[in-house]
Amino acid sequence: MDKLKHHIFVCSSSRLTGEIKGYCASNEGLEILENFVEEVQDREMDSDVMVTNTGCLGMCSMGPIVIVYPEGTWYGKVSADDVEEIMDALEEGESVERLMI
Amino acid sequence: MDKLKHHIFVCSSSRLTGEIKGYCASNEGLEILENFVEEVQDREMDSDVMVTNTGCLGMCSMGPIVIVYPEGTWYGKVSADDVEEIMDALEEGESVERLMI
Repeated sequence: MDKLKHHIFVCSSSRLTGEIKGYCASNEGLEILENFVEEVQDREMDSDVMVTNTGCLGMCSMGPIVIVYPEGTWYGKVSADDVEEIMDALEEGESVERLMI
Repeated sequence: MDKLKHHIFVCSSSRLTGEIKGYCASNEGLEILENFVEEVQDREMDSDVMVTNTGCLGMCSMGPIVIVYPEGTWYGKVSADDVEEIMDALEEGESVERLMI
């Protein structure tokens, strides 16, 4: 398949048991995910960018966590309001320094 | 933080509702995940390689799906028995051609 330009992973604390709990899920994780999906659609980047929810990324104290690959950029303490800025940076081939961990 | 050498994402069909269903979850997705975690530990690659479960990756007909970043290698129709071969390839900087999509 064609490689994605960017694959955005958002921690939703998804557990294999299905139980909905965990730091990121409880702190806007789902809103962050929704905002990324909306931003990607609004910017018509659907064919180049995928957004995927994940289980725990092991850095709960820095959550909510967002990772962008293939860049390997980890963002911490992300809020739903930060999503637009992250997407702006992504479009310009940059990162949001203040959120990087 | 230090960048990981490899980040392995395994579809576990994790839904935001917590409901446990979906192609990958029903077809060894969880065994595949467990096997990756065990292989990484057995090979003492814990500090370089992370394994994370994900929600649906949108290619259910090719599932179970495994992705390795930053390489951006997508594997499809992966079985629990394929994990050792994928890890062998990863250690050698190679991919398992027969599973690539």
